[in-house]
Amino acid sequence: MSAIPRDQWYVAAYGSEIGTELFGRTICGEPILFWRTRDGSVTAMADRCVHRRFPLSQAPSRLVDDRVVCGYHGFTYGVDGKCVAVPGQTRVPRTARLTRYPLVEQDSFVWVFIGDPAKADAAQIPRAPWLDSPGYTTVRGMEPLKARYSLLVDNLLDLSHETYLHGGYIGTPEVAETPITTEVDEEAGVVYVSRHMADAACPPFYAKSTGLEGRITRWQDIEYTPPCLYKLHSRIAPVGSVPNPDGSDPDAFHVEVVYAITPETEHSTHDFWAVARDFALDDEGVSAFLAENNRTVVLQDVEALDVLERVIATEPDGYQELSINIDTGGLAARRMLQRMAAS
Amino acid sequence: MSAIPRDQWYVAAYGSEIGTELFGRTICGEPILFWRTRDGSVTAMADRCVHRRFPLSQAPSRLVDDRVVCGYHGFTYGVDGKCVAVPGQTRVPRTARLTRYPLVEQDSFVWVFIGDPAKADAAQIPRAPWLDSPGYTTVRGMEPLKARYSLLVDNLLDLSHETYLHGGYIGTPEVAETPITTEVDEEAGVVYVSRHMADAACPPFYAKSTGLEGRITRWQDIEYTPPCLYKLHSRIAPVGSVPNPDGSDPDAFHVEVVYAITPETEHSTHDFWAVARDFALDDEGVSAFLAENNRTVVLQDVEALDVLERVIATEPDGYQELSINIDTGGLAARRMLQRMAAS
Amino acid sequence: MSAIPRDQWYVAAYGSEIGTELFGRTICGEPILFWRTRDGSVTAMADRCVHRRFPLSQAPSRLVDDRVVCGYHGFTYGVDGKCVAVPGQTRVPRTARLTRYPLVEQDSFVWVFIGDPAKADAAQIPRAPWLDSPGYTTVRGMEPLKARYSLLVDNLLDLSHETYLHGGYIGTPEVAETPITTEVDEEAGVVYVSRHMADAACPPFYAKSTGLEGRITRWQDIEYTPPCLYKLHSRIAPVGSVPNPDGSDPDAFHVEVVYAITPETEHSTHDFWAVARDFALDDEGVSAFLAENNRTVVLQDVEALDVLERVIATEPDGYQELSINIDTGGLAARRMLQRMAAS
Repeated sequence: MSAIPRDQWYVAAYGSEIGTELFGRTICGEPILFWRTRDGSVTAMADRCVHRRFPLSQAPSRLVDDRVVCGYHGFTYGVDGKCVAVPGQTRVPRTARLTRYPLVEQDSFVWVFIGDPAKADAAQIPRAPWLDSPGYTTVRGMEPLKARYSLLVDNLLDLSHETYLHGGYIGTPEVAETPITTEVDEEAGVVYVSRHMADAACPPFYAKSTGLEGRITRWQDIEYTPPCLYKLHSRIAPVGSVPNPDGSDPDAFHVEVVYAITPETEHSTHDFWAVARDFALDDEGVSAFLAENNRTVVLQDVEALDVLERVIATEPDGYQELSINIDTGGLAARRMLQRMAAS
Repeated sequence: MSAIPRDQWYVAAYGSEIGTELFGRTICGEPILFWRTRDGSVTAMADRCVHRRFPLSQAPSRLVDDRVVCGYHGFTYGVDGKCVAVPGQTRVPRTARLTRYPLVEQDSFVWVFIGDPAKADAAQIPRAPWLDSPGYTTVRGMEPLKARYSLLVDNLLDLSHETYLHGGYIGTPEVAETPITTEVDEEAGVVYVSRHMADAACPPFYAKSTGLEGRITRWQDIEYTPPCLYKLHSRIAPVGSVPNPDGSDPDAFHVEVVYAITPETEHSTHDFWAVARDFALDDEGVSAFLAENNRTVVLQDVEALDVLERVIATEPDGYQELSINIDTGGLAARRMLQRMAAS
Repeated sequence: MSAIPRDQWYVAAYGSEIGTELFGRTICGEPILFWRTRDGSVTAMADRCVHRRFPLSQAPSRLVDDRVVCGYHGFTYGVDGKCVAVPGQTRVPRTARLTRYPLVEQDSFVWVFIGDPAKADAAQIPRAPWLDSPGYTTVRGMEPLKARYSLLVDNLLDLSHETYLHGGYIGTPEVAETPITTEVDEEAGVVYVSRHMADAACPPFYAKSTGLEGRITRWQDIEYTPPCLYKLHSRIAPVGSVPNPDGSDPDAFHVEVVYAITPETEHSTHDFWAVARDFALDDEGVSAFLAENNRTVVLQDVEALDVLERVIATEPDGYQELSINIDTGGLAARRMLQRMAAS
């Protein structure tokens, strides 16, 4: 049985990745063709010609006035996926039509619905408004991961690994030492994991971007909405600073770290990451620093998880894991994902 | 069940590839050893030593006076495949003998019979006489294809793809637009597909080689003898020109495009191609142009079919295809190949 | 069923390979972590963290004062394999412990016991005392082999291949021509194969290292103790020279060629080789010559056996081999290994 939940929304791309060229990407094992039509909206349909299954995103396939022409025999499709021309005859078979995917462009992401289109409800897509809101500046990227998506979920739900895998970047001893609190909202389908460090060293990632010196108060509040969207609300402030009763928090720096965890296949993942901040909004030096440093951190995870995927692939079935308190959030997430995949 | 028909003749090599060095090639999954003996004839036998299965085509195996000496332990074989010497003892086991393959060198090709040798009838080998006839000049090559042979059969039986995959080389709009006629001779085991374009653009491939300018009459007459030999009789002439009642055709240029489609394994193919012409026989510029252009066209097919093989390999079983009129010849060929493979 | 015998000792490394850095190697499919503790002894334990199976030999995992700190979440282990620290909590789960492997460092090798530790008896490890004895000088190496270990056993038990695969190095016509005698000691678990050449050409390997010119007496006495240790007692002397009745043998040159044949996986092998000599003990030119030449010979085997592994992997099951007298020792070894693997 597949470990990938169906009838779910997944991030397929950043909106900025899709232009007026054909763009192919495999999402949950399904090859999908994207392009931005002349009216500016993004369209998504099956990336296989109905005739002999040639990929429509593959040259010499091409786009002519919002019509896709297959590079093998010239089958031609409109924005609605319907075939409008075939070679050697004027009659186009009625069944010649590409499957279209429900699609929403929102919060800088292109979301597609994988599963039964009748179940697609755009209201269920979780939000990450900072990624294209005024008041925030965002850096972002996507790294391909040669590992199953659940390894990335494990990784992000347990940030104690920052101390070891990301030491010198975002990890300090306090991350691993400080206990977490975990909360699961089964109805809303959200896992919360919080770690509030009252008095911690400031890692270079935050020291250089905020200018804070010395020890800090550092809060990590994770909010994961399986299967795809992960948000880390990160609060950095001078030691002792707390938000005001009205919610304002003028002494603190806020960083919204957002991941979209999208299975490419059963054993590979698109690892989208974005870092939105509410300070130094126009400082390009800070943007460049955060982009480069977060990408380095993501690549450290990618390297470790690629190793783990190879380890698991060569283990005999039924290998043992040992879980401790730090894994509470990750285990809750696994259970939710297993239920989703089984349903 | 294998998709490769047995008890059939296949082209294993051009005669020019086989010299007095050991030459190994896998045909229909069978590793075969070839060399040209001192009397000038080509011999073919199993490319595995009977002792520990070391490949006899692999250095330091070597040929000494028409005897093959295995590079591992020195088992030595004569032209008839019989072992004549083994290490450490004078008695040679009676059963130490390499399987030989029926072989015919004809029309510039080396044909081998894969299957039960008792069924090998050289009279059943289809002919391509132009490839070594006076009155024709031929250019040729072989490209390895990482795709099942049936994808190349599909490709060659439906030339409407020339317009899209080979535009700017041999394709023009008329190829895809002009309907075909298909005929199947079940008794002789031949599929015919014809497309006669009365008034068509002349693609660069023919314009530069014939010197014809402007619009042309272009005939494509395919004659495929499954499983291996494919011939495209190509006729290029000024618009309106037809052959004389006696068959002479002095105003036309004739090109015989010959493919030998030989499975290497279930999922890879030797793609032999040759282009014989009855004009500009001694013009080396024309030869160089046709050789380079046809190789480019073949490599365009190779790239597309390698993609298709990967697509099919990752599809769930039972994927759908949609066939139209242009596929009539290809579907007839598939049926003949399936019957051959099942028998 | 695995072809690899369990409950056996295998060479995992040369002692010189293991220092105070973490060192990982897979032995018989089991990933093992090695390091030399501060007291100078070598330790061996499972190379997978009990938490999420991250390899402990993989950076950023590291060694701190004889404790291994996992590079993913910081699980920390002592020399006895017991976990002594985990992140986020002070209580360490009682079951958090890495499997340790019985280990003996002897004759320059690090031996580990693969199987049930209760069955590990160090007295059963076969000896190769020359490799770190005064009176001998040794050159050595290890080459990775992408072939199952039984192909290397076959190779080494039948030295007639020296004439063909290693001609110009250690092979001469007499090796393949001279019959062998084979003896099997089932109780002790040893296969002996001897080939005494009374009057043979001296191959470059021995001519350049001993200075002997012209024809020689050459004895090859193999002693293989399955599964891992292979010894070739090689005696080179002027024609007609025999040892004295008291065992002294002053006119002869003695070379002890030792192989440790350790499965890495079912289809790959660590090919340890060492050449110990009782002459020219301090001659660095001779050492360099023997090291380079023996490595060349080993690599000739590696190339041939890698080819054979690919051949066998693509053969249909039930392929035939034909065995002759030279294979008597190899077939005896195979039977012993099959019994060991089945028990």
